Amino acid sequence: MTEEELAEMIGQMVKDTLEQMNSQPRIPIGVSNRHIHLSPEAVERLFGSKDALTQMKELSQPGQFACNETVTLIGPKGTIERVRILGPARGETQVEISLFDGFTLGVNPPIRDSGDIEGTPGIVIQGPRGQLTISKGVIAAARHIHMHTSDAALFGVSNGDRVKIQIEGPRGMILDNVLIRVSEKYRLEMHIDLDEANAGHIKNGQTGILLK
Amino acid sequence: MTEEELAEMIGQMVKDTLEQMNSQPRIPIGVSNRHIHLSPEAVERLFGSKDALTQMKELSQPGQFACNETVTLIGPKGTIERVRILGPARGETQVEISLFDGFTLGVNPPIRDSGDIEGTPGIVIQGPRGQLTISKGVIAAARHIHMHTSDAALFGVSNGDRVKIQIEGPRGMILDNVLIRVSEKYRLEMHIDLDEANAGHIKNGQTGILLK
Repeated sequence: MTEEELAEMIGQMVKDTLEQMNSQPRIPIGVSNRHIHLSPEAVERLFGSKDALTQMKELSQPGQFACNETVTLIGPKGTIERVRILGPARGETQVEISLFDGFTLGVNPPIRDSGDIEGTPGIVIQGPRGQLTISKGVIAAARHIHMHTSDAALFGVSNGDRVKIQIEGPRGMILDNVLIRVSEKYRLEMHIDLDEANAGHIKNGQTGILLK
Repeated sequence: MTEEELAEMIGQMVKDTLEQMNSQPRIPIGVSNRHIHLSPEAVERLFGSKDALTQMKELSQPGQFACNETVTLIGPKGTIERVRILGPARGETQVEISLFDGFTLGVNPPIRDSGDIEGTPGIVIQGPRGQLTISKGVIAAARHIHMHTSDAALFGVSNGDRVKIQIEGPRGMILDNVLIRVSEKYRLEMHIDLDEANAGHIKNGQTGILLK
């Protein structure tokens, strides 16, 4: 191969890559404020009945909803009121807060994928009809992208992959270690927390670019 | 040039680049919490005398110090108490808060370089001896790196450049648009705010890598 041929080949590769980047669908971003998932037993303890949760609005992920009900988190250093409950009820209670919230409460949440709560700190949860102390379950949620199976095929990624996502703008950044979660039940959306949204000056519905 | 020679050349370039990256000094990171710089007139209004500020501790940048004195910020939606004053007094009063603080106060600070306050929102500042309303000066400080002239030469950058900084760890990221500020008076340090520190799980004194 001559230098000219090689140069042309590299040029074509760069052109193809840029075209692919520009033609690739963007990923809408949803900013998660602090929230809590409750087990049925926790709902009963805090609200007096397992059926107490009522739907306020549907969330972007099918079947998920924000409840009208909220709880108060009580940490060793402070409390946070009106923490939204997300439904439906789950197997285990999980509290998702930002690191900033952690300072307020006096709790140091590790960065974890949802559901991975072994060895995480607990907290006191106050509801209108009772109080509950959990011994684990407080996390700062790791960045992740919900993808329908068809999205995963389109982006060429698999469940459990970690990818980089580029954010544009004055506080532009590339977020690393973004977990891919694939399910027939998911709708394409990247979830970040409020600290990450502020750091990137990212607004709800803004889009990111997946870098392979 | 043969393919073998070209392959060897590219291999050497990659090796050199990696060596350069690994040998390049890292940039220590300082996390800035909310703070305020006051003009001499503002000091007099809030504290009753232009000489009222007293030094609590030196900051990393030579000549800069945190004061024992604090003020309260009063926004349309909320107040934040015990906001640290940084000295010495400056020509113009400037309030540096995070976007999160902006929600608390009900003020929407633009991302600005320090000193660039035209068209930014104002706020009410309460001191022990008086109150002051500024018509501009509230910003969310843009990421920046203080460099001594010798550091700039070492990194091959100039005052006013914008660079990318890689942060390692579970919340690894590459921060874009990081302003380089060069002066004989500066000591090498990157300054980010609390939102950015939380988003990257970055602790004071952690280091970043400059990507060219």
